[in-house]
Amino acid sequence: MPLNVTQKLIKEHLVSGEMVPGTEIGLKIDQTLTQDATGTLVMLELEAMELDRAKTEASCQYVDHNLIQVDSKNPDDHLFLLSATQRFGLYYSRPGNGVSHPVHMQRLAKPGKTLLGSDSHTCANGCMGMLAMGAGGIDVALAIAGEPFYVKMPKVWGVKLTGKLPDWVSAKDVIFEMLRKYDVKGGVGKVIEYYGPGLDSLSAMDRHVIANMGAELGATGTVFPSDKEIKRFLKEQEREEDWIELVADKDATYDIHEEINLSELEPLIAKPSSPGNVVPVSEIAGTPIYQSYIGSSANPGFRDFAVAAEVVKDNQIADGVSFDINPTSRQMLTDLVKEGYVASLLQAGGRLHQAGCNGCIGMGQAPATGRNSLRTTPRNFPGRSGTKEDSVFLCSPETAAASVLKGKITDPRTLDIKYPSIKEPKNPTIDDKLLDKPLPLEEARKVELHKGPNIASIPKMDEMPDKLEVPILLKMGDNISTDEILAGGARVLPYRSNLPEISKFSFEIIDTTYYKRGKESVDKGGHAIVGGYNYGQGSSREHAALAPRYLGLRVALVKDFARIHWQNLVNFGVLPLTFINEDDYDLLEQGDVLELTDLRNKIKQGNEFTIAVKGKGHSIKVQHLLSERQVEIMLKGGIINWVKDRQKKTI
Amino acid sequence: MPLNVTQKLIKEHLVSGEMVPGTEIGLKIDQTLTQDATGTLVMLELEAMELDRAKTEASCQYVDHNLIQVDSKNPDDHLFLLSATQRFGLYYSRPGNGVSHPVHMQRLAKPGKTLLGSDSHTCANGCMGMLAMGAGGIDVALAIAGEPFYVKMPKVWGVKLTGKLPDWVSAKDVIFEMLRKYDVKGGVGKVIEYYGPGLDSLSAMDRHVIANMGAELGATGTVFPSDKEIKRFLKEQEREEDWIELVADKDATYDIHEEINLSELEPLIAKPSSPGNVVPVSEIAGTPIYQSYIGSSANPGFRDFAVAAEVVKDNQIADGVSFDINPTSRQMLTDLVKEGYVASLLQAGGRLHQAGCNGCIGMGQAPATGRNSLRTTPRNFPGRSGTKEDSVFLCSPETAAASVLKGKITDPRTLDIKYPSIKEPKNPTIDDKLLDKPLPLEEARKVELHKGPNIASIPKMDEMPDKLEVPILLKMGDNISTDEILAGGARVLPYRSNLPEISKFSFEIIDTTYYKRGKESVDKGGHAIVGGYNYGQGSSREHAALAPRYLGLRVALVKDFARIHWQNLVNFGVLPLTFINEDDYDLLEQGDVLELTDLRNKIKQGNEFTIAVKGKGHSIKVQHLLSERQVEIMLKGGIINWVKDRQKKTI
Repeated sequence: MPLNVTQKLIKEHLVSGEMVPGTEIGLKIDQTLTQDATGTLVMLELEAMELDRAKTEASCQYVDHNLIQVDSKNPDDHLFLLSATQRFGLYYSRPGNGVSHPVHMQRLAKPGKTLLGSDSHTCANGCMGMLAMGAGGIDVALAIAGEPFYVKMPKVWGVKLTGKLPDWVSAKDVIFEMLRKYDVKGGVGKVIEYYGPGLDSLSAMDRHVIANMGAELGATGTVFPSDKEIKRFLKEQEREEDWIELVADKDATYDIHEEINLSELEPLIAKPSSPGNVVPVSEIAGTPIYQSYIGSSANPGFRDFAVAAEVVKDNQIADGVSFDINPTSRQMLTDLVKEGYVASLLQAGGRLHQAGCNGCIGMGQAPATGRNSLRTTPRNFPGRSGTKEDSVFLCSPETAAASVLKGKITDPRTLDIKYPSIKEPKNPTIDDKLLDKPLPLEEARKVELHKGPNIASIPKMDEMPDKLEVPILLKMGDNISTDEILAGGARVLPYRSNLPEISKFSFEIIDTTYYKRGKESVDKGGHAIVGGYNYGQGSSREHAALAPRYLGLRVALVKDFARIHWQNLVNFGVLPLTFINEDDYDLLEQGDVLELTDLRNKIKQGNEFTIAVKGKGHSIKVQHLLSERQVEIMLKGGIINWVKDRQKKTI
Repeated sequence: MPLNVTQKLIKEHLVSGEMVPGTEIGLKIDQTLTQDATGTLVMLELEAMELDRAKTEASCQYVDHNLIQVDSKNPDDHLFLLSATQRFGLYYSRPGNGVSHPVHMQRLAKPGKTLLGSDSHTCANGCMGMLAMGAGGIDVALAIAGEPFYVKMPKVWGVKLTGKLPDWVSAKDVIFEMLRKYDVKGGVGKVIEYYGPGLDSLSAMDRHVIANMGAELGATGTVFPSDKEIKRFLKEQEREEDWIELVADKDATYDIHEEINLSELEPLIAKPSSPGNVVPVSEIAGTPIYQSYIGSSANPGFRDFAVAAEVVKDNQIADGVSFDINPTSRQMLTDLVKEGYVASLLQAGGRLHQAGCNGCIGMGQAPATGRNSLRTTPRNFPGRSGTKEDSVFLCSPETAAASVLKGKITDPRTLDIKYPSIKEPKNPTIDDKLLDKPLPLEEARKVELHKGPNIASIPKMDEMPDKLEVPILLKMGDNISTDEILAGGARVLPYRSNLPEISKFSFEIIDTTYYKRGKESVDKGGHAIVGGYNYGQGSSREHAALAPRYLGLRVALVKDFARIHWQNLVNFGVLPLTFINEDDYDLLEQGDVLELTDLRNKIKQGNEFTIAVKGKGHSIKVQHLLSERQVEIMLKGGIINWVKDRQKKTI
C-alpha cells in the first residue's frame, strides 16, 4: 500500500496497536526535548526512576523559557538541569543559547525520526521530516527511560501547496490561512502533512514556521517531507550525513484533503485574543500600536530577522513605539551581526534582547495597559504577554516591520519599497559552544545532582498496600478544577522543583487546613477525598496529582473524572474510583473512614468492588477503569516505581 | 587667587554661602538626570509643584534600571515618565537606549556645568569637567524647578596622576587603587580632582570609569579638567561647540594631596562584599567563577567591551561559566556590532543582553547560590545581585575576560597573548533615535500626564494650621529605622508611584493597625507619633516621610532624629520636634492628645515652645531646629507647596 510521510514515520516506529485512526498506538521515541519550565520536574522524575542513562538516540534539555534570573532560584534551577543532563547522558543547551525548537532543528533534528517534547511547540521540528509531538513531562521522562509513547492514531490531513508566495507574503501567512479557515480546534486528532509543488519555494525554516503553529490548530503533529531543501539545510549545518530522503509514495492518499494556492495569499493577522482570530492585515490597517516584537519559535529564522532589517534599514521607527528584537539562537544572532542586519535593526531604533523565548511566554517585554502589541509570536491568549488585559496581534515579520515604521498596523504591500530578497549567509556560523554534549557513561555515573536550596527530590512512594483504612479529608462538589487542587501562578510556580514546598498549596482554595491534615495522615496510612462530576477539569499540570499524593492521598472517589487528571492520578499511584450508584455520594461525609481490604487482589481481579464505611454499617460499590498496564502501575504505587523496576531489569 | 577646577565650578555656580569647607553653600544647577527607579516620584513631585516648564538648561529622564516588564506596571511607569517629560520640557531616554551616565556623557554633558542626578553614580559625568553630584529625588525636583542645591562646601582632594598604565591595567584599577588605600568612607565631604601628566593617556571614557566609582569612596563628586581629550570626545559626538577649556590655574592648590604613579599599578580586584575590599588579582588568582559579567556605568566604554572581545576572540569561554555582556548604550552597541567586536564576544560564547543597568542593580542575571560572580560593575554589597547570600567580585574588563577563558579568577598579565590595542571607531555612530528632545513650550502645555492604574498623583497637602489637637498614634523606642517606618523590597517597591497604595505599608512592622487609625485621623486634624533616640535611621527613602504624612502625621516628637529622615520630614511638612527634657518622653502615652496652639507664630518666633497634653494637666517643652527657610517650608505644609508658590510668582 502506498504510504504518505506520516504513515511511513508511524509504521517505522510502531511498537503496539494498529494504524487505525482513533485507536491507541505505541510509538518508539528516538529523540526528546525538554525546556526549563517543564524540565526540572522531568529530571526529578528521572532521578526517582533511578535512570542510569537516557535510552533515546538524542535527548536535549534546553534553557530558554526563564532567563531573567531575578534571584537565585532561577540560576539554581539551571545548575540542577546541567547536573541532571550530565548524569543521565543528555544534551544541555545553556541559558542564552536560544529557543529549543530552532536550535534543535539546526543541531539535532534528523529526518525519519520521532521527537517527543515537553513543550507544545515541539511539533515545529515536523519541518524536518520527523514525527514531532508535544506531551506532558512524565511522558517525556518515560520516553527518555526507553518507554514508548502512547497516542491515538491520528488521521492524516494532506495539505497540497501550489503556486508561490507573492511579495510581502511569507510562511506565517500560510499557517494563518489554515487558522483562518479551521480555527484553533481544526487540527485535533490529526497530523497535518504538507506536500505539493508549493514546497519548492519554502525553505526549511519557512516550513518550521508553518509546523510550529500546527500547535495552534490543535494538531497531533505537522509533517513535511525530507527533500532536497532539507538536504541543503543539513549541509549548511555541516550535518549532511544526517539526511535521508523521506517523501510520500507516488500514490499515497490522505484521510482529509486540502489545497492552498500560495499565489493567492495575502498578509494576514490574528487579532486579540486567539490565534484563530485571523483577518487580512488590510482590514485593520491603521490601528495604532505601542510595540512591535519580532522573534520566537513561530518566526525564528535568519530570513525572518533579515527581512525586518531590510524593511527598516536607513529608516526610523515611529515615535513612541518599542521595537523589540528577540533573536532565537546565538548561532543565528552571530550571522545576523556579521551580515549587517543587526546594525540595521539597531540603527532604526530597535531594542536587542538576549536569545530566548522571552516575551513570547510572558517573561518580560509586557505591553503597557490598554496598548496594542504586534508580535510574530504564536499565541495571543489573554494575559500571556504578562499584562492582564492585553491586546496582542500576531503577524509576519514583514507586517511587524512595516507597522513599526508607521506606528500603526500596516499592510507591508503598501510600503513604497521593493520586497527585499534575502539570501542565507554563505558561510553560516556553526556554534555549539553553549550546547553541551552528553558525557561518556563512566564520567556521567560520577556526577551528583546539584540541588540548590529550592530543589528537592521526589520522595519515594510506597506500593499500593493490601489494606487501606483512610479518612475522607475533603468532600467536594462538581467541577473541581486543577487550579483548585493546586493553584498555578507566580506565587506557586517558583516551587515546581520542590514537592514538599509546592504541596503546601494543595486544595488551599477549598480548605486551608487540608495541607496540615494531609501531612499528618501520611504516617497513619494516608487519606481519601470525595468529589462530584468532572473532577480535575482544567490545566494538565501533574503537580495537582503529585502534591496530594505526597500528602498521603491514596484514593479519589468521585462521580466522574476529567480525562487528563485521571491519567495523572494513575501515573502517581492515586487509586481513582467512581461510584457505581451515584446516590452513594450522599451517604459519605467528610471524616468518614473508608476501609479497603484485600485491595491488591480486588484491583487485579476486576473493575468493580465494594468499600466499607467504618462504623457506619453501609458499604459503597465502586469501580476503577484501569487497563492491564495501569493495574500494574497502580500496584507498584505509580509509574515512577513501575519504570524503576523496568530500569533495573534492563541494566 | 589661583583656583583648581572644582573651585572654579563652584565659584561660577555659587548662589549662597561662602566657599569655606564644611559650611553650607547653595549652587545653581544647570543640568539634571533622573532614572526610572527614582524618576516617577520626581515627576509626581513636579506635578504637585504645578511646574510649567523645567528651568534647567537640560534635564533628562533615563529609563535604564527596570527594563524587564514582567507585567504592565513597569511599561505603564515608562509611559508616565514619557508624558511627564513631554509636559515639563525634559529629554526622555527611552527604555533600551542605555545607562544614564554614559548616554548623558555622550549626548548632553557640557564642561563647566553643574549636574544633579537622582542616582548615586551621577558623579560619573565629573569626567567631563562638570560638577556632577548624586542627590535625593526631591532635591532633583527642586533643581528642575529652578531652585539651588544646598550642600556642604567640600574639601578638594587633588590626586596627581603621573606615569602611564602598564599593559593589562586600565582605568578601573586606578579607582580600585584609591579604594584600596582609602576604603568606602575615604571621600566623604570631599571632591576628588584628578590632574597631572598621567591624564594624557586616559581617554574621556577612562575618566568616566574613575569618576563613576568616586561614589564608592563616598565623595561629594569627582572632577576632571576639560582638556584636549574632552574636546576630541565632543568632536566625535558632533558636539564640538559644547567644549570649553576648563583646567586648574597654574598655581592652584588642593586641601588634600595625593599622587598615583600609573606605571606602578597592577590589576586589582574587590572581593565580596564591599568595593573597598581591594587586593591584587594575583593574590586570589585561581578562585573558580560561575559568571563573568561586563557592562554597567563603571565600565561603560567602547574600549571596555572591545578589549574583552579581543581577549576572547577566536577562543572559547570555560565550560560552565556564563559570560554576560551588558551593553551600556545602543549607540555604542551599534559601533561594537559594526567593528566586529560583538561577533567575537558571541562566538566565544557570550550572552548578549539589552542595553541597560540590568544585573548591576539586581534586575536579572543573579548568580546561583554559593557561586562566585565576577563583574565590572561598581558595587558588590551583599544581596545587590539579587541572590541573597551572593559572592560578587569587582574587576576590570581585562580581568573579567581573562577569567572567563580560564573559568577562574585570572591575572590578565598571565595570558599568553599581546595586550590588545583598541582604537575608537573612525566614524562613530551618533544615535538619538531613542532620546527624545524636549517638546516646544506650547506643545508641552497640551500634554496630559499618562497615568496607568498603578500611578497616582501626590494629593494636595494643607498648610500648617494655627492649632493642632493630635492624638499620639504610636509611641516607639530608640533606633526606629526607615525600614520599620516604610519597608522596602519587592513587595512594596512596585507601589512607589502610588502614594495611597504604598501608605498601606506604613509602620506595618511595628503596628498593623496604624494605617487604619492614621487614615481615620486625616479628617479629624491628623495625628502625632512619639519616638526615642536616632529616630528614622537607615535608608534615605522619601516615602518614609511622605506616606505617614499622607495618613495625617503632623508632628513627630522624639529624643533625636537621624539626619536624612529629619530633612525628609521637613520637606514633606511634618513638624519634627525634640524634647528639651528627655524625661518628658516617659510622661507620654499612646492615645494622649497633644495640643499645639498659636502654632504658626510659635514656629516663627523661636525654636522652643510648650505643648499641652489634653486632660493630663502636664505640658511638654519642645524645640524645632528649623532654619528660616525651613520655617517657611513648614508653614506652607511642605516643600512642594513652598515651591508651587514660587513657581506661580515666576510665571
